[in-house]
Amino acid sequence: MSRIDETHDPKRRSWVASANGHPDFPIQNLPLGVFSPPGGAPRAGAAIGDRILDLLALLAAGLLGGEAARAVEATADGTLNGLLALGAGPRRALRTQLSALLAEGSAARGRAEPCLHAAADCALHLPARIGDYTDFYVGIHHATNVGRVFRPDNPLLPNYKHVPIGYHGRASSVVPSGTPVRRPNGQRKLPSEAGPSFGPSRNLDYELELGIWIGPGNALGEPIPVGAAAEHVAGFCLLNDWSARDIQAWEYQPLGPFLAKSFASTISPWVITPEALAPFRTAQPPRPAGDPAPLPYLWDAADQGEGALDLELEVLLATPGLREQGLPPHRLALSSARHMYWTVAQMVAHHSSNGCNLRPGDLLGSGTISAPDPEGCGSLLETTRGWTEPLRLASGEERRALEDGDEVVLLARARRAGFAGIGFGACRGTVLPARGG
Amino acid sequence: MSRIDETHDPKRRSWVASANGHPDFPIQNLPLGVFSPPGGAPRAGAAIGDRILDLLALLAAGLLGGEAARAVEATADGTLNGLLALGAGPRRALRTQLSALLAEGSAARGRAEPCLHAAADCALHLPARIGDYTDFYVGIHHATNVGRVFRPDNPLLPNYKHVPIGYHGRASSVVPSGTPVRRPNGQRKLPSEAGPSFGPSRNLDYELELGIWIGPGNALGEPIPVGAAAEHVAGFCLLNDWSARDIQAWEYQPLGPFLAKSFASTISPWVITPEALAPFRTAQPPRPAGDPAPLPYLWDAADQGEGALDLELEVLLATPGLREQGLPPHRLALSSARHMYWTVAQMVAHHSSNGCNLRPGDLLGSGTISAPDPEGCGSLLETTRGWTEPLRLASGEERRALEDGDEVVLLARARRAGFAGIGFGACRGTVLPARGG
Repeated sequence: MSRIDETHDPKRRSWVASANGHPDFPIQNLPLGVFSPPGGAPRAGAAIGDRILDLLALLAAGLLGGEAARAVEATADGTLNGLLALGAGPRRALRTQLSALLAEGSAARGRAEPCLHAAADCALHLPARIGDYTDFYVGIHHATNVGRVFRPDNPLLPNYKHVPIGYHGRASSVVPSGTPVRRPNGQRKLPSEAGPSFGPSRNLDYELELGIWIGPGNALGEPIPVGAAAEHVAGFCLLNDWSARDIQAWEYQPLGPFLAKSFASTISPWVITPEALAPFRTAQPPRPAGDPAPLPYLWDAADQGEGALDLELEVLLATPGLREQGLPPHRLALSSARHMYWTVAQMVAHHSSNGCNLRPGDLLGSGTISAPDPEGCGSLLETTRGWTEPLRLASGEERRALEDGDEVVLLARARRAGFAGIGFGACRGTVLPARGG
Repeated sequence: MSRIDETHDPKRRSWVASANGHPDFPIQNLPLGVFSPPGGAPRAGAAIGDRILDLLALLAAGLLGGEAARAVEATADGTLNGLLALGAGPRRALRTQLSALLAEGSAARGRAEPCLHAAADCALHLPARIGDYTDFYVGIHHATNVGRVFRPDNPLLPNYKHVPIGYHGRASSVVPSGTPVRRPNGQRKLPSEAGPSFGPSRNLDYELELGIWIGPGNALGEPIPVGAAAEHVAGFCLLNDWSARDIQAWEYQPLGPFLAKSFASTISPWVITPEALAPFRTAQPPRPAGDPAPLPYLWDAADQGEGALDLELEVLLATPGLREQGLPPHRLALSSARHMYWTVAQMVAHHSSNGCNLRPGDLLGSGTISAPDPEGCGSLLETTRGWTEPLRLASGEERRALEDGDEVVLLARARRAGFAGIGFGACRGTVLPARGG
């Protein structure tokens, strides 16, 4: 599945000068998304340096052919759903042709250049209509840390190492990076309070997650075997699964989180393709001694060999105080996608194992990915050990939970010797005061 | 909200003879749906007796005007989403014009008659693209019965009477009545077993629920007040939330049901409008003494006065044995929508109270609605008291959980003296053997 070809060549440079050495979008990345140029309608694009390439314009200019043309034609409705549905073949053909068109020395430069827009002038949208959004819980250090707060006696439940735990999330409130996030009102009840009250969440948190875009998917009743799951993964993004912990603690029994999550989930707008991430595939870390082996429907040797991603994940916090004092954002966490107890293929196979149909443009979340060390906690619930140990910032501010005006930024970077590094682009959101609060 | 007008007149009869005295679809009902006539594409229709009226054909014949025409124009994409989005005005105008057109003595009969199809010849589809499906848990007798099985010591959790408990369901696997339901495979572990195994569910169950179709809905961040919630309810259906109880018991901690539910949820295909149900509105039953009052954001006097539905709910089971012996289906349950601890308006207000956006065509489930008596249990888990007391059928068969070949049929009927009774049409599904099982 991890095919390395000329599009990964670290020596390949682009005639789009800003792409060369770009931390996120060098010519080796070429992520796909949906953008609007100034005054224009939403349309499919590819990020290259600080520019966005209009794919339909490129098609109209006669610069794409064969499978790549078919991939772009499938975006005519202003979403990537149709392209994601086509699977790896057309997606890879598009990557190959875009890479050649954008490479230094391309004869097509003159005709391609008018199809570029300055990214800073464009609005970025959700890349696809999300049919269903499912959130998993595969970050084992997060599950353990959180379990310790809610259930000190048995942090990790007996099913955790057997079942890739997940639940249905809310698709309607998934928003693209940059959308402000209004602090939710809701019912919350402190253990010290006699009864619940309704008002602004007092424990607003973020969650650092990897998002997974589903490609072709499966028909109802026809599970995807774990060995075929990679064919149904069309790309990746960052996901901030904002969480109102006080609402969550009061509502979550017995059916799980609901309004604690459904007020907003922010994603980075670029779909980072499996092809771009091919150099950063790695073996799934071996399970600790004593852990049960996955059941056969979750086990595939090739997936274990290269189904994990060597991807650095970072969280930054910018507060009003830090901004006013001209101080840089505070790093909340440095983690890695290697801390996933289950692979993406295992998540897909489990999700469809009961016959549930996954559709092109469905979104999976990994669950919060925390590193085992205190500097790698992917949520404030963990960092502050259940709100008991406040964070002290260089501005003199303290934080337990997020406050109004705080901005959370998630970042992802893939690096490997002998390859050009790529990034996901930022996933950011700023907290607005609660309505009527 | 409960406006009674000439469309409810019990003396009004239709020139579609089968409508007069029809248990579900007399001229006083006029539910909306999406159907395909033989060889034709999906399109909007209204049920009248044993016929379906093609609404776009009626429009093309020049038989609809004003707001009613606008309502039907909004279905041009072959779904009701656009119509549901318009709210009560156009929906009511359509009802008024359809009722007049179909009434005995209508001068338009000759031109309307070619727009009718025999329902038996048509396929019925989902009436709308379901953006998100949310399942509530407002049947208090069900919650108590189930809680007793899973948590004998505290069947009803402390939040139940404060929070309309709900969770996100799976939209992709909602199917229309008549679609066969394949028994899911999944992980399950009996307490007596050392570890989990993967295979066909051994405790397949049904759940008797009311479905609610969302109309206009709200923008992200703008809650719907409980007093305005009825404007956002566009209709009702029956919902069988099939449940694999063994998978559920093993997977549901800590994030709630997932694969135990997402293999299929069956709905009755006709959208029964709030207008058709207006005569059957009733006061929400008073809370038992000692129960907490709802928080203000969930309390509206008008809603308490007429926000409940007097709707009889019935479940029938047809087994291979009953069919072979020519015996009628076994009645599994007789219940009523009056056994909802929260009103639909309270569910809508709660759902959006954190700013979560509801969209036209979203589907809410009530949760299982059991009556307090043993003959009113809305799931086999309850009827058999946790699989311990098998059901004996007239065929000599026994049932704890559902077996392959069993058909479950949900029915709903509204009756009130002085009004024509209406029904929802059946919500049926037959269990197929597990894949590879």
